[in-house]
Amino acid sequence: MFTFGTKLKLQIFGQSHSPCMGAVLDGLPSGIRVDEEKLAAFMERRAPGRDEFSTQRRETDRVEFVSGVLDGKTTGAPVCLLLRNEDTRSGDYDRLRFVPRPSHADYPAFVRFGEARDHRGGGEFSGRLTAPLCAAGFLCMELLREKGVAIGAHISSIGVCEDDRFDPLAPALDAAKAKAFPVLNDDKGIQMQTLIREARTQADSVGGTVECGVTGFPAGAGGTSFDSLEGRLSLALFAIPAVKGVEFGSGFAGSRLRGTENNDPYVSDGERVVTRTNHAGGVLGGLATGMPILFRVAIKPTASIGREQESVSLPDLHAVRLQIVGRHDPCIVPRAVPVVEAATAVALLDALL
Amino acid sequence: MFTFGTKLKLQIFGQSHSPCMGAVLDGLPSGIRVDEEKLAAFMERRAPGRDEFSTQRRETDRVEFVSGVLDGKTTGAPVCLLLRNEDTRSGDYDRLRFVPRPSHADYPAFVRFGEARDHRGGGEFSGRLTAPLCAAGFLCMELLREKGVAIGAHISSIGVCEDDRFDPLAPALDAAKAKAFPVLNDDKGIQMQTLIREARTQADSVGGTVECGVTGFPAGAGGTSFDSLEGRLSLALFAIPAVKGVEFGSGFAGSRLRGTENNDPYVSDGERVVTRTNHAGGVLGGLATGMPILFRVAIKPTASIGREQESVSLPDLHAVRLQIVGRHDPCIVPRAVPVVEAATAVALLDALL
Amino acid sequence: MFTFGTKLKLQIFGQSHSPCMGAVLDGLPSGIRVDEEKLAAFMERRAPGRDEFSTQRRETDRVEFVSGVLDGKTTGAPVCLLLRNEDTRSGDYDRLRFVPRPSHADYPAFVRFGEARDHRGGGEFSGRLTAPLCAAGFLCMELLREKGVAIGAHISSIGVCEDDRFDPLAPALDAAKAKAFPVLNDDKGIQMQTLIREARTQADSVGGTVECGVTGFPAGAGGTSFDSLEGRLSLALFAIPAVKGVEFGSGFAGSRLRGTENNDPYVSDGERVVTRTNHAGGVLGGLATGMPILFRVAIKPTASIGREQESVSLPDLHAVRLQIVGRHDPCIVPRAVPVVEAATAVALLDALL
Amino acid sequence: MFTFGTKLKLQIFGQSHSPCMGAVLDGLPSGIRVDEEKLAAFMERRAPGRDEFSTQRRETDRVEFVSGVLDGKTTGAPVCLLLRNEDTRSGDYDRLRFVPRPSHADYPAFVRFGEARDHRGGGEFSGRLTAPLCAAGFLCMELLREKGVAIGAHISSIGVCEDDRFDPLAPALDAAKAKAFPVLNDDKGIQMQTLIREARTQADSVGGTVECGVTGFPAGAGGTSFDSLEGRLSLALFAIPAVKGVEFGSGFAGSRLRGTENNDPYVSDGERVVTRTNHAGGVLGGLATGMPILFRVAIKPTASIGREQESVSLPDLHAVRLQIVGRHDPCIVPRAVPVVEAATAVALLDALL
Repeated sequence: MFTFGTKLKLQIFGQSHSPCMGAVLDGLPSGIRVDEEKLAAFMERRAPGRDEFSTQRRETDRVEFVSGVLDGKTTGAPVCLLLRNEDTRSGDYDRLRFVPRPSHADYPAFVRFGEARDHRGGGEFSGRLTAPLCAAGFLCMELLREKGVAIGAHISSIGVCEDDRFDPLAPALDAAKAKAFPVLNDDKGIQMQTLIREARTQADSVGGTVECGVTGFPAGAGGTSFDSLEGRLSLALFAIPAVKGVEFGSGFAGSRLRGTENNDPYVSDGERVVTRTNHAGGVLGGLATGMPILFRVAIKPTASIGREQESVSLPDLHAVRLQIVGRHDPCIVPRAVPVVEAATAVALLDALL
Repeated sequence: MFTFGTKLKLQIFGQSHSPCMGAVLDGLPSGIRVDEEKLAAFMERRAPGRDEFSTQRRETDRVEFVSGVLDGKTTGAPVCLLLRNEDTRSGDYDRLRFVPRPSHADYPAFVRFGEARDHRGGGEFSGRLTAPLCAAGFLCMELLREKGVAIGAHISSIGVCEDDRFDPLAPALDAAKAKAFPVLNDDKGIQMQTLIREARTQADSVGGTVECGVTGFPAGAGGTSFDSLEGRLSLALFAIPAVKGVEFGSGFAGSRLRGTENNDPYVSDGERVVTRTNHAGGVLGGLATGMPILFRVAIKPTASIGREQESVSLPDLHAVRLQIVGRHDPCIVPRAVPVVEAATAVALLDALL
Repeated sequence: MFTFGTKLKLQIFGQSHSPCMGAVLDGLPSGIRVDEEKLAAFMERRAPGRDEFSTQRRETDRVEFVSGVLDGKTTGAPVCLLLRNEDTRSGDYDRLRFVPRPSHADYPAFVRFGEARDHRGGGEFSGRLTAPLCAAGFLCMELLREKGVAIGAHISSIGVCEDDRFDPLAPALDAAKAKAFPVLNDDKGIQMQTLIREARTQADSVGGTVECGVTGFPAGAGGTSFDSLEGRLSLALFAIPAVKGVEFGSGFAGSRLRGTENNDPYVSDGERVVTRTNHAGGVLGGLATGMPILFRVAIKPTASIGREQESVSLPDLHAVRLQIVGRHDPCIVPRAVPVVEAATAVALLDALL
Repeated sequence: MFTFGTKLKLQIFGQSHSPCMGAVLDGLPSGIRVDEEKLAAFMERRAPGRDEFSTQRRETDRVEFVSGVLDGKTTGAPVCLLLRNEDTRSGDYDRLRFVPRPSHADYPAFVRFGEARDHRGGGEFSGRLTAPLCAAGFLCMELLREKGVAIGAHISSIGVCEDDRFDPLAPALDAAKAKAFPVLNDDKGIQMQTLIREARTQADSVGGTVECGVTGFPAGAGGTSFDSLEGRLSLALFAIPAVKGVEFGSGFAGSRLRGTENNDPYVSDGERVVTRTNHAGGVLGGLATGMPILFRVAIKPTASIGREQESVSLPDLHAVRLQIVGRHDPCIVPRAVPVVEAATAVALLDALL
């Protein structure tokens, strides 16, 4: 299902090569200003064909609001936004109809949906679908901003090369956003770009991680048990193709620590309660602590690579040597940064309404 | 919310010191045999007070079915099961009413629910609530087993000491279950126990990870986008107190690889499609590939430690030196193993019905 | 499914002859006072065995809170309440295992759940299950009352004998509540009782309607489209066994009117907007108008009658002459009055949170 | 919320004067044939401007599939369909921005959404939104038909004039569909048309009822308690503007009967279990009995009438004499017939998947 949320419902639709993709947001309050210029700037951070690292598929990704917005403001009715798919080359995919690409969703999708499924460009499993997610997330972010909640992400690693981490007590959420290559430490950014170029040259791809931070999310907000902030965020984040892991605060590294090292002592400045450290990543018991919310997502190397790979022909189960042509990102991590922000905004706004 | 699922609804209730805890499972098919002896054996794997590593709180954790079961079988009506809280020492918690324990949910829970909340033993945020989760998960596991789906987990690390990993193509799911200390490699198990003993001796605690595997989950099952297997499993897993991260297949390690290294080539034995490797952890595009589903969860060191810690008194925000007394686990990872299995069963059965 | 609600989740469980019935309310705010005496008085309005018109099954229907309540107040954790089934005579039902009683759920339930289902006393389809619904509804009513929302119902007809209707502009919601036979017009009440006595004497049963009113529900609250107040209330009301129809405001009678007769003109006293009439029953477009919410539910004659009826033996499809013994209400309408109030409270509180 | 369903999710969007209206259906199986010609014929039954009784607003209501359909079949991805709003005269509504029309949703919608709401043509509360509901319902009906489930409705009354009823044991579901004025008894149809003409001549409107029948819905399907067929259907039906009541089987009339009159005896022809009568309307305990499902909905007289009415100016609460201009149906019941079928299809398919 491409639906998310309880108090705010998001429905995404579209396939890589369908006439339109889009999103419906139901439950958005009325009166939220829709700044189309700012939205275009946000979409540009994710858009394909912008630099040497991303697919050369070229899409304008212009967002058209066809319901729920009047005179530049939400009306309270469901907001439907559309994006056209323009630069599709469906012919590239004819040979792939019955030959699943390794580490793409092709095979389980064929088992589930059969021959009627839209295999072109990965169909509804394509990274293209993160465009309407971004547009929807942008609207959520605008409303969160009015409530004092800010969200920002950056590339935290490409392959083995790691960026600096956000300061867990005071993350510089906007530091990477405006950069063409969104890292905190530009020297590391240059090394990362070298890694991506190498992978591309070798018809290969490379993975990485994105770190995301949130400030201003009120203490006590979120949910308990099956409704935890971590669970809700994960549900949204795993909807992003290629995400394979999520960790909050000290996460997996924290599992190697002692309690004395990992616990966050409480202190007060006389006005509010804070913690000296933030290994919790701003969440305890599913609820926000009032400290910055911090998490990292693991993104696998792009499954589409230029090398010949082993596959099978589904009708007869014969072995096939598969060479993927078409236009692909050697590394999707840079473009995933705003997508992670958008998914975060959707999950957090739903938790806050 | 302590509710999970769409086709199968699980509702958990109770607090650490409430008269009862329990669970309701609504949507279970009729006719599932409830083997109370087998259930008791499963509960025993999680039960407190059984060895030197766990809290000395002693609970029988006998499960009483008060609706939905007749003549040892489910009837199709909602199954309600109860567990009594017997060995409570609420007095231990009087001093903690207004002094949040570091890295527990006390502080955000106080902000959310105020003075009326049940702070005794952590209230509804207590690890005690994993007992009804286990009982509910057991019933789900029984039904999954009839459908050919098997689930098994083991301690994959304590502190820096790592157990062997499951064979990603053919995990030995039952290898650790019967052991008092559930690891695959017993030599590593001995080292881990030493680490836990050291932590306990030093009034400290230690974290770890649990690896879980699933076989027989049919290819194509699961869900797309916001309904992905990864997302659904995460939603259930983050309901387990102290879980701070989830990764599928190669996970975070995979984010450091190249596509040529991380992709899983397809091959066939003439009858079915399999992959040569299983870096995907059995999930692509949110759907099962038919290969074993594999994931790891990060568990933080127990927040309750015997050392004096810094906190604040909530009414007046004065600094407080806090010494936690009471009975606590120096490491909850061993007891978390069946809990991870149970949460997995609940999420997968809901996805499969 | 015995689950209701989105922001407030209600889970009901139990069967007519299971050890316990009960309810879990998840999402109730903390700090709501639980007045057990007042609750007992409310439960008494529904309880069986109290007069000549109801089943002679005698249940104390004492409500036991086993989680989520501490020191007489909700804690914010899920509230679980239990009611014991005490006066069960399961033997009465042995002959009915394979012979469906006309107009009971026996037949479709057998098709759905098979032999494992609990047929005793109608299992989970029994009117007994309205006891936990009442207890849960009572808690919701308490919170609604704090928010200024009042709910009241009365018998509006038994057979062809009609009670007066609530004044649609200012309904006297409490007028009938305290009466042993809850009508507005006691003369009509006497006629109704005669009808019920006649039916009982003839080993027959009789149906009726309940009218329910709500005041103080704020204008603009509710939901649009598939989330309308009418739809949400109906979802809750049709969970009451024997309810076969729901109409709001002028309802079916309004469908026979002209627009000039049925429209409600707006007027103002300078401070707020009201309508001169209230044919809308307080709801337009799924949202509350601020006028009293008014609706009626149709309740069929009790399906259990003492007369011999035609049925079939399910294993072999042979014709059977069925004589229902056991203890039954010749008319359940009087006891349904508080149940309608309770279902209304659950639906409206969920809509309001 | 304009969302419905659990296993099949329907999201409707649009306003009377927004550029587009549409629907997304998520969860539809792949491979369902989309017969655009048949769809157009179904849409034509609801379309405005076709005869003397309906609004003179003229819309083509052509349905455009922008995702989820490929080569004339569903792919398994969310199906998004769009309808353009073409013949809008927003100027007609300028004066109504702050003057609520009696018995429309204008007033509660203003309270809820404020000045930013789209008041033109009633915004998202308009009957226009039943067009995408019909298109979505058509797809559901196609799939239901493959499963042997048929749905049909007819005008059962206009004002005080009643059509014949469906035979409750064998309803002629297609009898009225092809008619320009969809009744079973054409003599009654002529009388009804006279009533509508009279109302129109007098700048007035008139209400009515629609009866709907369903055959082939399997015994045992549906849901229990809060998930009953009656509740689910009501939730969908009350999303249709102007619906004020729903009754199943003998409904309100049945509440005036004795059990001996209203009970449906079981008989068998040796192969299956049927009932001699069908006062239950095919539903017991929320589950289908296997007999035809039958229900009626009450539709109020069109709120838009040509007569001068009382209202208030919302900013200053001054009294206003309101004269509604624009194009309106003197009776919407005929056009509601396919809408009731569509809403029924959506609810039943969700219950059946």
